[in-house]
Amino acid sequence: MEKIVVLYPSQPDPDAFKTYYLETHIPLARKLPGLLALRFSFDVRGVGAESPYSCVFEAEFADAAALGSAMGSPEGQVVANDVANFAQVPPTLIHYSVDSKM
Amino acid sequence: MEKIVVLYPSQPDPDAFKTYYLETHIPLARKLPGLLALRFSFDVRGVGAESPYSCVFEAEFADAAALGSAMGSPEGQVVANDVANFAQVPPTLIHYSVDSKM
Repeated sequence: MEKIVVLYPSQPDPDAFKTYYLETHIPLARKLPGLLALRFSFDVRGVGAESPYSCVFEAEFADAAALGSAMGSPEGQVVANDVANFAQVPPTLIHYSVDSKM
Repeated sequence: MEKIVVLYPSQPDPDAFKTYYLETHIPLARKLPGLLALRFSFDVRGVGAESPYSCVFEAEFADAAALGSAMGSPEGQVVANDVANFAQVPPTLIHYSVDSKM
């Protein structure tokens, strides 16, 4: 399984961010071809220190090729280009394979 | 579901980090009471920029209370105290609830 995680730092207008994210960005993300699962949270807290991130998004794909195809698809380009519409402070994006599960 | 995610920046000795992590730290983490799932990866890549993290760990608990109990348990204290034994550059820890799943 290949996961992509998007870590959003705190934004200057959290309410506007949340509204756009829920009403526009997530519906676009749900259209990604090959998407197996999607989760997100606005309730991000630190452990032993303040969290540098206020929103976390995770999505799962079968493998790295499926993630690459999704991000290269027309739907993926729409999602990627949409981020600048609501995130004044740009997110950190990472992806990785996970084979280990209890 | 409550998730805890540990984001490790690149370490000065990646091989020593990986060996200790696999042989000592993960076995300790698997003993956490209430742990529902555990995943990790050393193959973390950025999207559009270099990843600031080289290792990601995720664990799932039923809810925030279960996570709190786990981290406050003797097993949780052992896991928390063990991080300084292998991470020269300290990780960022976040936790959040996720209710939304496709």
